[in-house]
Amino acid sequence: MSSMWGKNLKISVFGESHGSEIGVVIDGLEPGFEIDLDEVERQMDRRKPGKNRMSTARKEDDKANIVSGFFEGKTTGTPLCATIKNKDRKSADYTQIRDNFRPGHADYTGFVRYNGFNDYRGGGHFSGRLTAPIVFAGAICRQILEKKGIEIVSHIKAIKDIDDSSFDYTNIEDNLIERLSYSDFPLIDESLEDEMKAEILKARESLNSVGGKIECAVIGMDAGVGSPIFDSVESVISSMMFSIPAVKGIEFGEGFDISKMYGSEANDEMYVDDNGNILSYTNNNGGVIGGITNGMPVVFTVAIKPTPSIASKQRTVNVADLRSDGDVKNTEIEVNGRHDPCIVQRAVSVIESAAAIAVFDMLYGM
Amino acid sequence: MSSMWGKNLKISVFGESHGSEIGVVIDGLEPGFEIDLDEVERQMDRRKPGKNRMSTARKEDDKANIVSGFFEGKTTGTPLCATIKNKDRKSADYTQIRDNFRPGHADYTGFVRYNGFNDYRGGGHFSGRLTAPIVFAGAICRQILEKKGIEIVSHIKAIKDIDDSSFDYTNIEDNLIERLSYSDFPLIDESLEDEMKAEILKARESLNSVGGKIECAVIGMDAGVGSPIFDSVESVISSMMFSIPAVKGIEFGEGFDISKMYGSEANDEMYVDDNGNILSYTNNNGGVIGGITNGMPVVFTVAIKPTPSIASKQRTVNVADLRSDGDVKNTEIEVNGRHDPCIVQRAVSVIESAAAIAVFDMLYGM
Amino acid sequence: MSSMWGKNLKISVFGESHGSEIGVVIDGLEPGFEIDLDEVERQMDRRKPGKNRMSTARKEDDKANIVSGFFEGKTTGTPLCATIKNKDRKSADYTQIRDNFRPGHADYTGFVRYNGFNDYRGGGHFSGRLTAPIVFAGAICRQILEKKGIEIVSHIKAIKDIDDSSFDYTNIEDNLIERLSYSDFPLIDESLEDEMKAEILKARESLNSVGGKIECAVIGMDAGVGSPIFDSVESVISSMMFSIPAVKGIEFGEGFDISKMYGSEANDEMYVDDNGNILSYTNNNGGVIGGITNGMPVVFTVAIKPTPSIASKQRTVNVADLRSDGDVKNTEIEVNGRHDPCIVQRAVSVIESAAAIAVFDMLYGM
Amino acid sequence: MSSMWGKNLKISVFGESHGSEIGVVIDGLEPGFEIDLDEVERQMDRRKPGKNRMSTARKEDDKANIVSGFFEGKTTGTPLCATIKNKDRKSADYTQIRDNFRPGHADYTGFVRYNGFNDYRGGGHFSGRLTAPIVFAGAICRQILEKKGIEIVSHIKAIKDIDDSSFDYTNIEDNLIERLSYSDFPLIDESLEDEMKAEILKARESLNSVGGKIECAVIGMDAGVGSPIFDSVESVISSMMFSIPAVKGIEFGEGFDISKMYGSEANDEMYVDDNGNILSYTNNNGGVIGGITNGMPVVFTVAIKPTPSIASKQRTVNVADLRSDGDVKNTEIEVNGRHDPCIVQRAVSVIESAAAIAVFDMLYGM
Repeated sequence: MSSMWGKNLKISVFGESHGSEIGVVIDGLEPGFEIDLDEVERQMDRRKPGKNRMSTARKEDDKANIVSGFFEGKTTGTPLCATIKNKDRKSADYTQIRDNFRPGHADYTGFVRYNGFNDYRGGGHFSGRLTAPIVFAGAICRQILEKKGIEIVSHIKAIKDIDDSSFDYTNIEDNLIERLSYSDFPLIDESLEDEMKAEILKARESLNSVGGKIECAVIGMDAGVGSPIFDSVESVISSMMFSIPAVKGIEFGEGFDISKMYGSEANDEMYVDDNGNILSYTNNNGGVIGGITNGMPVVFTVAIKPTPSIASKQRTVNVADLRSDGDVKNTEIEVNGRHDPCIVQRAVSVIESAAAIAVFDMLYGM
Repeated sequence: MSSMWGKNLKISVFGESHGSEIGVVIDGLEPGFEIDLDEVERQMDRRKPGKNRMSTARKEDDKANIVSGFFEGKTTGTPLCATIKNKDRKSADYTQIRDNFRPGHADYTGFVRYNGFNDYRGGGHFSGRLTAPIVFAGAICRQILEKKGIEIVSHIKAIKDIDDSSFDYTNIEDNLIERLSYSDFPLIDESLEDEMKAEILKARESLNSVGGKIECAVIGMDAGVGSPIFDSVESVISSMMFSIPAVKGIEFGEGFDISKMYGSEANDEMYVDDNGNILSYTNNNGGVIGGITNGMPVVFTVAIKPTPSIASKQRTVNVADLRSDGDVKNTEIEVNGRHDPCIVQRAVSVIESAAAIAVFDMLYGM
Repeated sequence: MSSMWGKNLKISVFGESHGSEIGVVIDGLEPGFEIDLDEVERQMDRRKPGKNRMSTARKEDDKANIVSGFFEGKTTGTPLCATIKNKDRKSADYTQIRDNFRPGHADYTGFVRYNGFNDYRGGGHFSGRLTAPIVFAGAICRQILEKKGIEIVSHIKAIKDIDDSSFDYTNIEDNLIERLSYSDFPLIDESLEDEMKAEILKARESLNSVGGKIECAVIGMDAGVGSPIFDSVESVISSMMFSIPAVKGIEFGEGFDISKMYGSEANDEMYVDDNGNILSYTNNNGGVIGGITNGMPVVFTVAIKPTPSIASKQRTVNVADLRSDGDVKNTEIEVNGRHDPCIVQRAVSVIESAAAIAVFDMLYGM
Repeated sequence: MSSMWGKNLKISVFGESHGSEIGVVIDGLEPGFEIDLDEVERQMDRRKPGKNRMSTARKEDDKANIVSGFFEGKTTGTPLCATIKNKDRKSADYTQIRDNFRPGHADYTGFVRYNGFNDYRGGGHFSGRLTAPIVFAGAICRQILEKKGIEIVSHIKAIKDIDDSSFDYTNIEDNLIERLSYSDFPLIDESLEDEMKAEILKARESLNSVGGKIECAVIGMDAGVGSPIFDSVESVISSMMFSIPAVKGIEFGEGFDISKMYGSEANDEMYVDDNGNILSYTNNNGGVIGGITNGMPVVFTVAIKPTPSIASKQRTVNVADLRSDGDVKNTEIEVNGRHDPCIVQRAVSVIESAAAIAVFDMLYGM
């Protein structure tokens, strides 16, 4: 336990991949906020499956139905619940995975965690589909943050071993933010798009998959947000990011590379500009020092593993006989059905949404 | 806020670098556990400053005084509080940092967060010294975990750009665990020790500092620990790890490298062994899939930035006049005093202790 | 904030009286529990409005629709969400209360708390209707508790100033439990039923309302549940009970009367019976000493205020002009519409359900 | 678990009656608050034992030693830890209670909860002595609240069955507040003092004890504090009040008496005064409606049971043989040593302090 998160903005996610609906309860939104529902839908569309050959063929329109906490076009301040129907369910596709655990998926760990009673169809509660409610919640948080001058933007930092450029950590320009926000395949260096897409489609054709990295920046947070020791900004953001399936690493600023620098290179030297703003010449620490924001962009990168669903043959175990006290057997599995050869491009809006939720929680929780 | 952490084992850390004492309250320990105080002290000694030329000259014996929750040699089950005296305080050393923020330190962010009222001496509550109570708490947790068959071990994965070998993620041998646990400079490939130490001493001589990486393994956790979505094992461990000053990144298993693999390489194929144990041939996911342990070693690596305290001249700001409504000024600072040219070797026991606390919390909190 | 509760069993309630649906997310149920849906429905029927002249004429069938966390007739262990449709909504009835606050209701406090953006129709999120999801959640908890030998039973302790007998705190007999559990108007002394009902109907006829008291017992909890200081059994139960609208007081065991006893009377003297069970001769402390259960029935009584909705004329304020920066005005209101002249008899199942949730949380959270 | 409390202001209490010291960590205080240490000491003196024949002869000066979070006379904003020495320990007095449980005390429940490993001397962590750190923490909170215009005042509402008058719930005058705040035996009707004290001393002489009631008011909270459903003001306050040993009941406003009123009497009719303040003619609801403050004084009464320590002979059990797998035996006990014949007068400052903590937490946690 638990599928609830947050100290100030509490998020409770529920549902399974092949249940009737999935959803989220958001508790702690300010009252009277006029939600731009079209913009929420646009964010959900960025994550939506079935758009092209790089994602699963599962077709979901992913329209959220707001059940509570929303009255006359505005938030009420009481819990906002929204549900999303699961329309394109093909449960028959998944009967084999009940007994044959798919490598890289939570089939085995979920089986143990829930004594075999979890809904195994399509990964159940572990499905990447459960990121749809997170995007919904994050889209609302983001709108409120934008009113307060905080923007969140990200780009595909890598597809497999093809790397995009990094953000300039000291200055992320508005027109770049604008361009990335409206792209389905956001890159700083757009010339890499064809090569990256070719890598994804090659993986698809060879019944395989690829992963990558996403770099995300939160711009406009004042200095002084976060707390020392246990409630560092990095703790809160990382706790949220590892809630997203397939994330296997996170680094702030130069992250793992800062460990290779000398102190004299790593330290972000400071200055005051003509307007009295205290800034730093570099931002190797990614906008967080001692767990607390310093007013520079908060920048972090996450590693996304390749989609575990692949159609090629893999070794695994079969637990069919376990239910009748028999033995676990070694076997092989080919995961058929509808898969994403790469989820990195769809995960961009999930990472941004999760960041929005985490930032929202911190700003209201000092 | 907050310097408290945990759902089941609650840890509350208090104190400042130059106050009379620092300490910790640990709430949620089982009653009747006979603490091996010598072993606790040994763990604290691993972190202790002043041992050699690679660490700060500050001399602290770091003896913990147990104030409560401990009766007739055993835990009572009620909150265990322990305090540690700050003996070698030279507050005079630190008066300049009140007004001149040290780059890379929390001087500026703490100033903003606490409106200038925080104890600035030696970093105050942000000081690395506050990891001593974490080691104390972790040392107790670790003893209880060991009784349950869970071991925690780590090694210096890198000093600057000199890399040690990685653990074999599928099989970490007992004699390696034993050797690393009793080493002050734990390496898998011991032949690297001289080169690494030379790098540290070179940094010291050039008034500079270096960072590195630590790889940590938790061995013996059953499959099925952790929860989907927000309480993933990675979320809990990363939340704790980013509580340690200087940690700027974390990755599980192959982490950032898994993002460069094909799915067919990344997925950990499974098998059942002759004893009926379900295992995987590889452990690229670092023992956690879908947020839940799979029974393989839980392995993660953290990036440690170079110690921010360096004696060479750096650009920064001076806020002396701000207190009288004057302007912030640009200035330069040389951070004199007693510094660690590298804290990686001292951080090993901190990382292990923090891991012990996080694992303890998860095992009692499903 | 917040409409979420619990440390181990987390309950998140959402919805408004006149929204499309209300509901609950329950996180932390054990996997594999076969829910008796008929029994859940029976508990919800006990609370259901519209059954007779003593309750509101609002007709709701109060069927819960389980959306998630329930698979093949059993709990999965992942969050269980259920929704309940609001069918008999007559929003037109409530337009006047937007501007004229009903005395005794949360109209004014909700208006201030949410800056006027809360859904005012029928009390919105503050409506007693929101206890339906609590009964749903409690009905499931209760079934699981019963499997572990824990029973929860209660009775109407008073309607206005007509008092029923008290439980025998040292021994509550099975046939009494059985009888009370299946009664719509549960009384220990059934001879009082006519008099009490006459009082309720008299209030109804005079456009007025009455309150009363409910006494609840939790039988079968082992000694040793709860914690000293802040997580006392009384703290957890009272925190939950004051979540129920109209509860204005709670006492454990003899409660306010124990304050009038001598220590020699109040102390529950102890003995060991022939089976080695440690019991007490009396149970003035209501089964809780030092915040922890002692194995005797946990007994508490709550005070329920008279339903605030009454049709007689009352003085209040009108805030219509406030929206256009005008003044608040004094006025009078007659609350028409469908009201309960007494909610005590309907609240019985709510109190029991809330107790089940609280006990469940404690048993899994030591 | 747990001896930690709070969402925004986190309080962690530690220690045992006969350990070396007890204490508290307070996390979440605002930085820069200049604590009036004399006033803190005055509040602690109100609770202090050994002052006269109505309390225990145990002599403790109860001086708090601030260990952290306090710098140059002001709060730093980081955790404030304070310890209080246990000076007048006579452990020899308590050896018999190790095996013979005192009726009415937590000896038995603590024994079960902690498997016999708790510190039994003087009640250990369950001792009323642990309210000293609560008074310390509350005294600081109260000072901060006072700066914001919030006052907390209480009086002895009853000693045994001798009742003091009640507050006027709509208007508690400043000179009454002043008088009660500086009284060691605060009563609205001072003419009752002699009779009440005679009752206490009579109990003392007959080796017995008495309890009573305390009525507490929080004046100056704005309307709109608190939340619907689970975080009602009553939930937060009651959760805190039942953390105080000996509290067995709580009621808000008219509480149990409101359950005997008609709705037309109970509802607090409202009006706007000439200054535009929205007020109510009565305050039967004790300043809280729908879980949220309405701007009227928040008033509540708690029931305090008679001190369980009495010198007269009582029946109990002996568990000496249980440690060697023998049987529990019936026996008798006379609790000798130093006892309070009545703790109500000492509990006044504890109740006020606990209220201050709860109110502080709510005001910073909406």
